[in-house]
Parts: sequence; structure tokens; C-alpha cells
Amino acid sequence: MNHIENLTRYIANFVDELSKSGLTDVVISPGSRSTPLAMTFAEHPDIKEWIVLDERSAAYFGLGLAKQTKRPVALVCSSGTAAANYFPAIVEAHQSRVPLLALTADRPHELRDVGAPQAIDQIKLFGDYVKSFHEMALPESIPSMLQYARTRAARAANEALTGNAGPVHLNFPFREPLIPDFSLENLWGEPLQEPYTIWHEGQKRLSDSFMKQFAAKLSSFKKGVIVCGPQVKEELAEAVSLLAESFGLPIIADPLSQVRTGEHATNNIIEGYDAFLRNEKVRNALKPDYILRFGAMPVSKAYLFYVKDHIDVNQYVVEHHEGYREPVGNPTEFILADSVSFCSDLLEEAPTIIAEDNEWLAQWKQMNEVVKKHIAKVADGSLTEGEAVKTLVEIIPDNSSLYVGNSMAIRDVDTFLMTSKKKLTLLANRGANGIDGMVSSGVGAAASGQPVTLLLGDLSFYHDMNGLLTAKHYNLNITILVVNNNGGGIFSFLPQASNEKHFEALFGTPLHIEFQKAIDMYGGSYYNPTTAMELKEALQSSYKEKGLSVVEVKTDRTDNFHWHKKLWSGIEHEILKTVME
Amino acid sequence: MNHIENLTRYIANFVDELSKSGLTDVVISPGSRSTPLAMTFAEHPDIKEWIVLDERSAAYFGLGLAKQTKRPVALVCSSGTAAANYFPAIVEAHQSRVPLLALTADRPHELRDVGAPQAIDQIKLFGDYVKSFHEMALPESIPSMLQYARTRAARAANEALTGNAGPVHLNFPFREPLIPDFSLENLWGEPLQEPYTIWHEGQKRLSDSFMKQFAAKLSSFKKGVIVCGPQVKEELAEAVSLLAESFGLPIIADPLSQVRTGEHATNNIIEGYDAFLRNEKVRNALKPDYILRFGAMPVSKAYLFYVKDHIDVNQYVVEHHEGYREPVGNPTEFILADSVSFCSDLLEEAPTIIAEDNEWLAQWKQMNEVVKKHIAKVADGSLTEGEAVKTLVEIIPDNSSLYVGNSMAIRDVDTFLMTSKKKLTLLANRGANGIDGMVSSGVGAAASGQPVTLLLGDLSFYHDMNGLLTAKHYNLNITILVVNNNGGGIFSFLPQASNEKHFEALFGTPLHIEFQKAIDMYGGSYYNPTTAMELKEALQSSYKEKGLSVVEVKTDRTDNFHWHKKLWSGIEHEILKTVME
Repeated sequence: MNHIENLTRYIANFVDELSKSGLTDVVISPGSRSTPLAMTFAEHPDIKEWIVLDERSAAYFGLGLAKQTKRPVALVCSSGTAAANYFPAIVEAHQSRVPLLALTADRPHELRDVGAPQAIDQIKLFGDYVKSFHEMALPESIPSMLQYARTRAARAANEALTGNAGPVHLNFPFREPLIPDFSLENLWGEPLQEPYTIWHEGQKRLSDSFMKQFAAKLSSFKKGVIVCGPQVKEELAEAVSLLAESFGLPIIADPLSQVRTGEHATNNIIEGYDAFLRNEKVRNALKPDYILRFGAMPVSKAYLFYVKDHIDVNQYVVEHHEGYREPVGNPTEFILADSVSFCSDLLEEAPTIIAEDNEWLAQWKQMNEVVKKHIAKVADGSLTEGEAVKTLVEIIPDNSSLYVGNSMAIRDVDTFLMTSKKKLTLLANRGANGIDGMVSSGVGAAASGQPVTLLLGDLSFYHDMNGLLTAKHYNLNITILVVNNNGGGIFSFLPQASNEKHFEALFGTPLHIEFQKAIDMYGGSYYNPTTAMELKEALQSSYKEKGLSVVEVKTDRTDNFHWHKKLWSGIEHEILKTVME
Repeated sequence: MNHIENLTRYIANFVDELSKSGLTDVVISPGSRSTPLAMTFAEHPDIKEWIVLDERSAAYFGLGLAKQTKRPVALVCSSGTAAANYFPAIVEAHQSRVPLLALTADRPHELRDVGAPQAIDQIKLFGDYVKSFHEMALPESIPSMLQYARTRAARAANEALTGNAGPVHLNFPFREPLIPDFSLENLWGEPLQEPYTIWHEGQKRLSDSFMKQFAAKLSSFKKGVIVCGPQVKEELAEAVSLLAESFGLPIIADPLSQVRTGEHATNNIIEGYDAFLRNEKVRNALKPDYILRFGAMPVSKAYLFYVKDHIDVNQYVVEHHEGYREPVGNPTEFILADSVSFCSDLLEEAPTIIAEDNEWLAQWKQMNEVVKKHIAKVADGSLTEGEAVKTLVEIIPDNSSLYVGNSMAIRDVDTFLMTSKKKLTLLANRGANGIDGMVSSGVGAAASGQPVTLLLGDLSFYHDMNGLLTAKHYNLNITILVVNNNGGGIFSFLPQASNEKHFEALFGTPLHIEFQKAIDMYGGSYYNPTTAMELKEALQSSYKEKGLSVVEVKTDRTDNFHWHKKLWSGIEHEILKTVME
């Protein structure tokens, strides 16, 4: 068979099998070498292609879309530094367990490492940050090679999803000419109804005898704490609430645990821990017998100190598949089991049910109420950073997603997101906690069709302003709330702030730019509210609009630091005076 | 000694030794973990720090500065995806042999791979793309460890420069607290006048007997071609001109060879080869006996075909140190020797001097004159892409640098940059030929103080618009000429252009944005000339201004394609009719 037919059938079978394996979206960055993949994806009837020019943004767009949909998303780019631009998002996908397929086009073997243009060594380009790497064979269309293309496609899509999800990298050598011939008969291969390979993955579940013993052990303790860190399994909220109610335990629920909001019972959920665990006396008073954690470590540094202070406490960390997420260094029992089944199995084996209104739980709830009271009082009409975030989480629509930036944004959401019946999906890039790629991540999530609000700071917004192009290009519905304190706000909270000589240049790093001009360039609506009421109105109209809206709240870094300090010391003062006395 | 003193002295000795080893510039991206490095660099009296927020841009800024100065430039960033953002520029630095030092801050060992925030595996993060990687020890200030810090600094700076230059990566684990104490006595270590280590690097030079034989061999041929591909050694121009004159040979001089312009003799320089080597008959007529190439493969695809057509020709490729840059696959003799010494050694040994006005050279010159005549006629006052580039290279100031973007920009410079007495430094990112990082590369070159003009297309400009922030922040003098054909102009020249269904979406990729708004945001002057005369005036006033100026020339992709085709077919027609008949 000739070159074009080999190329066409090989890639068509590959792409078709990806579709059969559940892939619905591909993010394509323009290039010449990637023509066979790009054109075949565009031609396939069941895959939606998104064209994103900046490959760094493209990979983050794919990451956001994959986070939102929990399906693998493919990335296609040309050879050279194009592929290297995927690296930050690949790292984040690895760290936060998101299924991505990086499909990089490459020069064929005879044009590698010989000084040919746009040829770099793409073998294992992303090192250990991908779950697997495979160098694809040159296109051939004999039956065994079409089977190979199909199995590799199915395998990549499924590998990205099984166990801890993550990125997979396939590198494609292509010779010229690069243009497939879509007029070939039976282009998409044999009209199989079934996928070529099917993957059935079991869940990890501990034995009945272990669960019996474990339940007995927990029941022998008085003071337990359930911790729900960042995790994406929706069903955990219901399962863990039932468990907490039966055992009479508080749930420390990270904003990214998907446990703070929703229809499940929220009586035992403690959302104000970050404020009151800042105080050492409080941490000592709340010393637990054991901690049972689901998900990653919470965002809260106060919680980290809480664990650190109690090295002698039994700590159990539940992982669905595998992983070692215990940054404190305390002794830990790792429980490798599906979190939801684990909760129900534990509940079933629990020999005694502890009364709900025990003193231990009451103490947590009482402190939490103090925090909630102070947070409620925040509303004085001015527009501090805290007020902005509080307003946002209050009026964000039901059945929508909130994508939260790193640095101050996630910390403010931790402080201000209270339990509610709203069904919110909380997303963030907490694998590596970078401020990069946030706009594209949010826009990618919005590409799923789900309404998305992106909350982030000015440095993070600047870092990935390129991401706005895709929102414009596809008229995607997204509301972006930029809290602009003209620089790195979080550094005001760190010891670096006391260094007058170097602080502003190295850490404060003000941008001094008017984002409105860029937003105008990308055809977005722009709002610049200066009061809480104006912010509310701006957000509400942004939610009614189609396309991109950016709401910018301008604040002051120093004011913000003092405002937070005041809030926390008010809470601390009242807790020490009333609850702790 | 206490933690702060260990940290301070260790890093101060490291930084001081970098300075003693010739490092003058560091590019710092803000972060917390990198505080010891960032503050110490800022404190050092002899190192200039540049704060660049987007790490991708930061690394390209460093690349541009290092290309311009030929000195190593250090990059400092925090842990996590910050470091991953360096990857594209690290790849380019590796491919185009530019000395860079990536100094990445990391969490200490006990906080790695345990789910701690902003901690990723940074060991060998850049794979084989760095010349060396070293994981630094934790800071200590006993004398042996200060010596270690000094030797590692000297070694990194020198390793980046020796042999084929390239990037070096050092990873620094840091424990909190992170703030150094600059009040310590004898902060910068022993006041040594000399660097701690000094490196003397010899040049590769072939034996007299080899040179005698080689010269005799070349003299036995009638038809030789000297090719100067992309290379950075300024002295080559003079040396290779003398050689060419003595042997009576044409010099095919790539625009990035630093040979087209300058005070040296340019009689034998052929700059129009890309136009006339497009024709197969011409390539056959110009079949050489041997090719002697210095530098990388030229940009011109026509030249590539010329080599490909003549597999039986003796091909000699000169490399200063090592490398295999022969993408055609023809038989080749590699000559590992310093190019300038090689030229003079060859000249010395040449047994016979071939007359300058031989028929072979005359034929090349005659064709070149036809090209020059057609190029000269281009000036019809309208503002095509070709006209824009032609105008730029005509009026670009003497003693300045032209940083050329990839894709169409470098090809138009190849076509329109004629020999002249102007001293121009031609820079480009032709290691991996990416369109990414170009703005930052140009701005980085401008940070050297040398006047810089950056020429690039709209996709490339968009890709790294973030780079403009640094020009604004430091009020750097740079003129950027953006040729905006609203999309990927080069694809109109490729076979993809014939695919009506997918072309515009996958390859044409129009941006449809008004750059003027972004330029306004970054405080640049903006010009939008519509005639050649207006362009001339715009460029001239931009050169008189301080700071950032952007000159945007809006063109049409399809017109541009036809315009180039017409130019080339005009040249082809005349050459076939007159020179070849």
C-alpha cells in the first residue's frame, strides 16, 4: 500500500479507537508535522476538536476540561518546543491525578539528532511525569499494524484513567507527505460496535475481618476527627456524613473535598477550622485520639500545625489506589481502599454507635459557630478581598463549578466557603499549586458546557492571559473574578514581608497594568465593582451573559493583610474568652 | 553554626563565585522557596537582577540576553511548575548552544513526594536537555561546604560555556526559615581576588600534515562551494571571505551566519541562493565538486534540495567542538576544528591560488545579480510582507541586533537581507525553531544595552505577549516589527493549504485580535503604517524613542503567498532565459 494510505488508515484506526474508548475531546495546537493527527481528529464525527494556539495554554485547557469531565482529553501538537510547552500542565496532571493524553508529532528517525529543523529528542520528554510513554511505530496499514494502532489508543485512554489517573505520552514519527486521504473506503476501520479492548477495573476493598477490627479500634477511642482533603469523588460527601453522624465525629472539610456543599447532611461539617486552629492553645485543647483522612492534605496551614503538634495521635490516611501523601512525617497507617466503600463497610462493622451530641463534637461545633458568626459580620459593604470572595461564594449559581486559583484565592475560599445545599464542584490545580495556566484551566472546564466561575489573583491572571483567546474563539461561558492587589498578595503574610530593602522588588512585584485593555482585546465584558453591592450585581449580570466576563476587584495588599489579621484575631479572642475558658 | 548563618554563607559564597566566574545577570521569578537565592543575588553588588514573573518568559529572556552577550545568564525560580515553565527555553538553549544556568529552589528531602505543597520531583527535571545536573547539598557553612558551593558555582558557569555551550541545572533544597542575614561579617567569603577555579579551554586544530593534504585535495577540484550556516562567531566573516577569495569560491551565506553584513570583503557572498536554487535545472547546473560548510544547516529549503540532489558530492562540515548536523543523510566528512583557525590554516597550506574570476564563481554571481535586481524592484510603495522586511533591513541602524522570529520572518530575512557594510548581529531561536518565547528573547537581548529590533509574525507575537511586561518594567529599548497576516502565514506555502475543509481552522488559525490594546496596556508606542514610506518613518521614530515601540504591518496571507510566488517565478524565468540558456 502507498504512503498516504498507510498514514491515513493507521491514524484513522488510532483516532477511532480513542473515540470508542471514551475520548470525546481533543485540544489541537497548529503545526505542520502533526497534520495527520490534527486533520484526522477534525474529520472524526464523534470527537470535538478545540484549537488552542499556545501549547502551554492548550495543555492547561485540556487539564481543566479533563478535571471537569473526569474523562481523558487528548492534546495534539507539532514537534519541537511545542511539546515542551506542555510540561507544566503534564506535571500538574501527574500530581493531581488527571487523565491526559499527550500525542506529540515527531520527525521520523532518520531526521532526528542530525540538525534537521524543529527536531528535538522527544523520547520520554516528560520524564517520570507520565504514567507511560510509548514511541509509536511509523504508519503502516497491514492488519497487524492497524490492530497495534487500536490497542495503543485503547491502552493509552484507559491507562490514563485506571488507578491514580494521570497523563500518558505517545510520540508519533511522521514522514512527508503528511496529508491523509479521507476519501478512502472504510476509513474508520472495521465497523466494530464494541471497542477493541475493554477495561474492567475493580475497587480496593479490605477484608471483613480487617474492617471489624478497625471499627472496634475506632470505637474504643473517644476523640476522632474525620478529615476530607482535596478529592474529586462526589459520592464521598454522603458516605462520610453518615459515618461522622454515627461515630459522632467532626469532619474537617477542605473546600476542595466536595464535602462542604451539597444535599448531604452537613451537621458535623466544620468549615472554620483554619481560623481557630491557628491558635496553639486551641490545637492542644482539640488534641484527638485519631485522625481519619480522605483525600490529599488540606490547604490549611493551621491544620498542618494541628497534625504536627500531635505526633502521638493515630493517623489513618485512605487512598483509593496508592500514594504517600503525609507531609508532616507523623506515624501513619495507610489504608488503600475505595473511600466510599470504606465508609459504608466501616459503618456496617461499627459495634457501637456513639451519641451524636457528645462533648468532643460539641466543642468543635461551638468553635465553628464563633468563626461563622465573625465571617457573617464581615459584610460591612466595603470591598475587601475577603468580602469579594464571600460575596462570590454566596451568589455563585447552583449546579456550577468554581475553579479556584492558588496562593490567596484558595485560602480565601477556605475561609469563606460555608456549607450550603448548593451543588458546587470545586476545582483547583493543587497538584503542584502553580499560579500558571489558571485561565486556560478555567476556560477548559467551561468547555464542558458546565457554568464555570474562575477566581484568581492578578499575577495568576497575568501569567496565563493567553488563555482568554480560547474563551473568545469559542464564545465559552465563563465568569472570571480577578482579585487585583497589584502583586503577590500572599507574600505580605510571609516573613519576607519584613525585609524592606528587597520586598517590593522580589516579592511584592506589582504589575501596574490595566487588565481592562486585554479583556477588551479578547472581547470580554468587563466589570470593576468597588462595593460589595456592585460586585453582587456585576456577578449576577455576568452569569446572565454568554461568553467571557471578567470582574476585577482592585484591592490593596497591605490593607488586605491587616484585614485578615483582624478577622483572625477577633475569632481567636472570642474563642479563647468564651469556648476555652 | 545556626541555620540562618549556614544558609547565608553557603548561598553568598555560591553567588559570589558565580560573579567571579563571569556571571553578570540573573533572571529571577518571584517565589517563596527561592528566597535565599533571590535575595542574595539582589544583594550582590556585581550582579544585575531582572525580575520576570512568567517563568517561561523569564527563561527566554535569559536566553536572549545570553545569546546577545555570549555570557552565561542565571535563572532563579521557586519549586513546582515554575521550574517546568523553563523547559521550552532550556530545550532551545540546548539545541542552539546557549549558556544558561537554571537554579531551581526545591523543598528539602523530607518534604519530597509526601504530598507537601508545591513539591514536585525536580531531580533531572530537564532530562538530557542540560549539559549537567547537580542536586546541591543542604546549606552548611563549614569551610569544606563553602568551598563546595564555590566550586559548584564556578563549575556550572564554566560548564555552560565550554565546548558546545548549553544549559546547566542546579537544584537547591532549602529548609525554612528562608531569609538570609546580610549583616553577617565577611558575607561574601574570603576576599579572594582570583576566582576559585579558572578554566582554560584550548581550540581544536588539525595537524599541519592533515591541513596540507586537505588543501591539496580541495585545490584539485574546480567547483567548490563554501556554506556559512547559522553560527555566532563574529571572526568567521573575515576568515571565510579571505578563504573564498583565494580559492575563488562562492559563499552561500545564511542570514544568521553573521557573514552577510559587516566590514569584511563581501565580493564572493551569494545571498540570493534561496530564490534560484528553487529550480531543479539550476541546482543541476550548479552541481559542485565539494561543499565546505561552517555552522548549522542554512534556513533555506532550496539549499537543502541542492544538497539532496548531489549525494555524490564531497561534503565537509566544520564543527568547533562536536555535533552531527547533517540532516540530508549524504556522505560527509566532519571536521572538528575551530572554524576561524581552520580557515587561516587552510589558506596557509593552499598550494595554488585559483583565479578569482573563474567561470564557476561567475555563474553564481550572475544568478545572484538577477535575484538582487528583482529584489530591488520590489519597492513599488505598497506594503507587502516582503516589502516590510526589505524596508526593515535597509534602515535598521548600524551596530545593532536584529532578532528574527521563526516561520515566515526568518525566511523573509533570508530573502531580503543583502550584503552591506553595516555591523549587524543576527539572532534567532533556530535550535528548535519554535514560535514561542520570541518577545522575551528579543527583550532579553535588549537588556544587554545593545539596540535590538525584533521581527516576528502575529502568532509568535501573541504566543509570548507576556514578554512585553519586562520591556515595560525596565523601560528597555526595543523596536518590534509585527507582520500581522492574522494567522499562520507559512501554512499557505505548504500542501495543507489545498485542503479547503480543514485548512482555516487547523492551519490558518486567525487570531482576530487588535494588538494595539495589549501594547497600550504595556505602555508601548504603537505604529500601524500602511505604506512603505510610512513604515520607514515609523521605524525611524521608533529608533529615536526610548522604551518599547511596536510597529504593526497588517497584511493578507493569500496575497502574501501569491506575491512571493510571483517574485520567485520572475527570478526563475529570467535566470532560465538569460543565465542558463
